[in-house]
Amino acid sequence: MINLYTWATPNGRKISILLEELGLDYAVSPVDLGKMEQFSAHFSAISPNNKIPAIINTEPDRDPVVIFESGAILTYLAEKYGQFLAPHGQARYNALEWLHWQTSALGPMLGQLGFFAVRSQEKSPLAIARFTEEAERLFSVMEERLANHTYLAGEEYSIADIACYPWVQAATVYFKEALKGSFDTKPALQRWLKRIGERPAVKLGMAVPTL
Amino acid sequence: MINLYTWATPNGRKISILLEELGLDYAVSPVDLGKMEQFSAHFSAISPNNKIPAIINTEPDRDPVVIFESGAILTYLAEKYGQFLAPHGQARYNALEWLHWQTSALGPMLGQLGFFAVRSQEKSPLAIARFTEEAERLFSVMEERLANHTYLAGEEYSIADIACYPWVQAATVYFKEALKGSFDTKPALQRWLKRIGERPAVKLGMAVPTL
Repeated sequence: MINLYTWATPNGRKISILLEELGLDYAVSPVDLGKMEQFSAHFSAISPNNKIPAIINTEPDRDPVVIFESGAILTYLAEKYGQFLAPHGQARYNALEWLHWQTSALGPMLGQLGFFAVRSQEKSPLAIARFTEEAERLFSVMEERLANHTYLAGEEYSIADIACYPWVQAATVYFKEALKGSFDTKPALQRWLKRIGERPAVKLGMAVPTL
Repeated sequence: MINLYTWATPNGRKISILLEELGLDYAVSPVDLGKMEQFSAHFSAISPNNKIPAIINTEPDRDPVVIFESGAILTYLAEKYGQFLAPHGQARYNALEWLHWQTSALGPMLGQLGFFAVRSQEKSPLAIARFTEEAERLFSVMEERLANHTYLAGEEYSIADIACYPWVQAATVYFKEALKGSFDTKPALQRWLKRIGERPAVKLGMAVPTL
């Protein structure tokens, strides 16, 4: 049985989406970031960087598997259950390169934009300009990719799409003001967002955790 | 034959270190960031996010494999040549979680610290404080891990160490002022830095590209 440690954030929802796509039975342990529960001794032992998500997979007659970092968890689940990541060849590395693009660029840069443009009371025009421009650039990279391919890794839905979807979906709401009409000029990105968002497993995964 | 598109940066050197560790013959194509060569049409076709590193692996009687994103390239090389990443089990995912920790946290946050604390002429105290604190936190996470394990993934040297080394090594020089005595209070991190830095392949990989 898989226990998912998560909260209502894009990084957490990547994992609940994949678990739903795989049709797996799993338990949810909410880690309330508002109450700083990510710093508890129990959670620190599972996730030493004090971030959600993390999972523990307990199977009969085996040592439990414990993993933090959303990119590593997506890779583990895709490899273990044999879906949404090709086992070898160019298709595999297309999925992994776009997965890493999400975890190393899209996620961290939108995270910083959220802090400087939305959450921080003190305003730094330098930082707001930097992360607004970077977010615009990243969405343009995505638009160009999706203008020529159905999914990020090519013609197959993969963990790269699952990693990006909750971030892009949140950005269309959360950064509506900061990024103004940016999404209106990106038809391929919008088509992809609609296509992914209509998947039943994505709808279920996006509703986790129930608060 | 592998062609490595790179420049004298930590992300580029991750790949040259691994290629040296694997003892592979490879060609180096420098992408001069100072001349904005990462935006050339030729390089954009290889790396649509316009970042180094990228590789093309051309083998007889096969389609060439083209990959961008340092984390995906490290995973590809480790999987293809069967070293520095366990094929399955907890050891594999320990390496992948610390690899993703480097590409999603250590790299992007030190990158921002470099911009705000060192490169930008305009200074934002808010941004400098934010990224200084985050860098301190990340190095503390690493110190705690390395106080209890020889390498990041456990007792085996892996692509997680290769991903972190050029960033930590650069930070000890580049952020000497910004992070003040931070490294002096982290003996496990220093031992790890010395242990990795003494490896012959690491010395060779850190000298790529020759400019």
